[in-house]
Amino acid sequence: MTNQIPYKIYLEEHEQPTAWYNLRADMKNKPAPLLNPATKQPMTLEELSGVFCEELAKQELNETDAFFPIPEEVQKFYRMYRPSPLVRAYCLEEKLQTPAKIYYKFEGNNTSGSHKLNSAIAQAYYAKQQGLKGVTTETGAGQWGTALSMACAYLGLDCQVYMVKVSYEQKPFRREVMRTYGASVTPSPSMTTQVGRKILAEHPGTTGSLGCAISEAVEKAVSSEGYRYVLGSVLSQVLLHQSVIGLEAKAAMDKYGIHPDIIIGCAGGGSNLGGLIAPFMGQQLRGEANYQFIAVEPASCPSLTRGKYAYDFCDTGKVCPLAKMYTLGCDFIPSANHAGGLRYHGMSSTLSQLYADGYLEARSVEQTAVFQAAEQFARVEGILPAPESSHAIKVAIDEALRCKETGEEKTILFGLTGTGYFDMVAYEKFHNGEMSDYIPSDEDLKASLAKLSKID
Amino acid sequence: MTNQIPYKIYLEEHEQPTAWYNLRADMKNKPAPLLNPATKQPMTLEELSGVFCEELAKQELNETDAFFPIPEEVQKFYRMYRPSPLVRAYCLEEKLQTPAKIYYKFEGNNTSGSHKLNSAIAQAYYAKQQGLKGVTTETGAGQWGTALSMACAYLGLDCQVYMVKVSYEQKPFRREVMRTYGASVTPSPSMTTQVGRKILAEHPGTTGSLGCAISEAVEKAVSSEGYRYVLGSVLSQVLLHQSVIGLEAKAAMDKYGIHPDIIIGCAGGGSNLGGLIAPFMGQQLRGEANYQFIAVEPASCPSLTRGKYAYDFCDTGKVCPLAKMYTLGCDFIPSANHAGGLRYHGMSSTLSQLYADGYLEARSVEQTAVFQAAEQFARVEGILPAPESSHAIKVAIDEALRCKETGEEKTILFGLTGTGYFDMVAYEKFHNGEMSDYIPSDEDLKASLAKLSKID
Repeated sequence: MTNQIPYKIYLEEHEQPTAWYNLRADMKNKPAPLLNPATKQPMTLEELSGVFCEELAKQELNETDAFFPIPEEVQKFYRMYRPSPLVRAYCLEEKLQTPAKIYYKFEGNNTSGSHKLNSAIAQAYYAKQQGLKGVTTETGAGQWGTALSMACAYLGLDCQVYMVKVSYEQKPFRREVMRTYGASVTPSPSMTTQVGRKILAEHPGTTGSLGCAISEAVEKAVSSEGYRYVLGSVLSQVLLHQSVIGLEAKAAMDKYGIHPDIIIGCAGGGSNLGGLIAPFMGQQLRGEANYQFIAVEPASCPSLTRGKYAYDFCDTGKVCPLAKMYTLGCDFIPSANHAGGLRYHGMSSTLSQLYADGYLEARSVEQTAVFQAAEQFARVEGILPAPESSHAIKVAIDEALRCKETGEEKTILFGLTGTGYFDMVAYEKFHNGEMSDYIPSDEDLKASLAKLSKID
Repeated sequence: MTNQIPYKIYLEEHEQPTAWYNLRADMKNKPAPLLNPATKQPMTLEELSGVFCEELAKQELNETDAFFPIPEEVQKFYRMYRPSPLVRAYCLEEKLQTPAKIYYKFEGNNTSGSHKLNSAIAQAYYAKQQGLKGVTTETGAGQWGTALSMACAYLGLDCQVYMVKVSYEQKPFRREVMRTYGASVTPSPSMTTQVGRKILAEHPGTTGSLGCAISEAVEKAVSSEGYRYVLGSVLSQVLLHQSVIGLEAKAAMDKYGIHPDIIIGCAGGGSNLGGLIAPFMGQQLRGEANYQFIAVEPASCPSLTRGKYAYDFCDTGKVCPLAKMYTLGCDFIPSANHAGGLRYHGMSSTLSQLYADGYLEARSVEQTAVFQAAEQFARVEGILPAPESSHAIKVAIDEALRCKETGEEKTILFGLTGTGYFDMVAYEKFHNGEMSDYIPSDEDLKASLAKLSKID
């Protein structure tokens, strides 16, 4: 049987998903609602629609419909770079001498370099449908900004990206990719918004943060005619769109009669992990199957493993709704680790609820070990992984080596969310032995979490 | 019919080629042999084997066998990143409003970012088979060096890369990718070879050239126990390995009953173009089909369109064999254009002979127009193309627009050799309006070509 499974499984076009799967429909304990920060009441459709496109606001609030048809125009765009391959890591298995069977769903084969494009095109599509001129967003590592730029270029929408200043300066090439796709990119904090000017006045010389860039992008959207704000992770609508990853992976595995025992994904805001596990978790919640799910986060930003499950602000400027999530506190500043996509202080409310209910495990891993795993993977599998994705690789290798000890022939599936072409500064530090592992002290976390109580 | 053709055609594993195709077997006029620079006699197997692996030297000299089985180990490696997709450019067609049908064979979906990996793994495999410790090579833009590093990491061979100094300094990220795969990378010219020391003494402060790096890599190989030199283009063995591109493309097109009218590829040393057209040109030479073949080169380095068909040195240090080819003279220094892979002074002897015999057209295009085409392509097809590949895009768009004028429904196939993730400095210059077109003057070319007569 093993020999019959190809190195890469590509679905045929007619086998690709035509609807997204809304995991919340199968959750008994629904994720807690977003709250209006002023009234502390659940956000209404009307309130959400002031910030988000209306159709997306509806998706955000819908906890009952299990499936949302993927619009034909979005399916067409998906066909340009999807299906992504489900890869059997034969070479890695051989290198590790493990009886485990390792698969990964590779989302890096598109110019944005990650899975972010799956939601970017959906959000841009609904903005276009609503007759908007354009959208605003923030980006840290740059993958989301690139993805949104591509989607907007394709649909002819204006795209305004607030890029965390330190990334803007350290990753000029990411900026140029976005410009190639016609986006305007502003380093954040900037003088173009009130919140930006305020932050600059209070913290002159700050190099910015994701939470701050979010505040600027939201303000820009709500104060501009014909614009809305879009976000690349955390929100339920994003997990909905990202379910295409899991749906494809499951269809490909079903086609070959493969049953994964362990499903692993890196977790920042939760968009990739939530998308990958969605249909599998749905089975689990319905009592149809049994899988082990593992979320992997950096030890430097351990929202699941060391955070608190509480309502918190999503942004530094505190202009966004409150979300109940595992959080380190919205003022938590993670160390300058190199997995920019995993530096958010909170976790998707859906994944937070699943974690609280014991459906999901979480592990935190240290940066140097992650890059060791990344290099090991690159040398045998030929793909240079993004630092974020390498967190999942690290735990997949750990599990495969455990199988080697126990002799178990487990089947492991992990999400390889993207490529590391724009992360070579990090790889260089690793090669030069200049990479450090930073783990926040209990005192630091306590201080950051202490501020949470003021919200409830 | 049109609607039934998917956006991307992937061959199944069992449909992938199991043998490379040697176009020379079907050529009536064979390419001129490599000559020993000392004796001016054709290089013997023994002589070639001092520089190249023996099996590769045999492939270099073999003009009669049409097929060479692809070793199982190489097929296994190919399965990690091949088949590459044959993409129907529906979105580009729609954007151009052309009746033409446009297809491209996309070779960029691997970490080397280009087709170079196809020959790198073959050459590394034969080196390993011969029991060598390692290989040496040169790299300019860095795609070949990266590809060879990946192949050597996979097989456990040492890999020593001489990287043109200006690229080494301008493209530190490429260097780090190679280091990730365990290669040692030396800026050339260097003090590690006689020829490097000589060039540095004569031209202190030089930023190097491809011809110079070749000389260093060859010297290093022949003076080191257990090493051979490998080259990423120009040679017939490389075109042989790259035939996998054309074989896959043809199999995919045959599967769907598609007949290309025009086949377009960018041409530097000729490895991509030679590989893409091989099986189609074979049909043409055997009188079985009729295609229009177009080689596209930069106006700044126009070896086919303005060069001379003559014997010339392959390297600056003049330690390599002489090859008969369209050449601008081995001392020709192209302007600092941004298509590093298309800056070689000569052209593969196979393609040169086909061009001399009228089987192949050639066009030269200017850099700014190439980047305009690249950006247009990126925005609708979602792939950020390498500057080299964009030369083919430019002419494909030109031909599609011609069809729009004439109303002809031609089918166009072009080679999209790679991605531009490491070329953002070039894109930045383009965005900022700082890109210039440089076309060598007749006087400059005359001066460079005048030195050729000394060889014959």
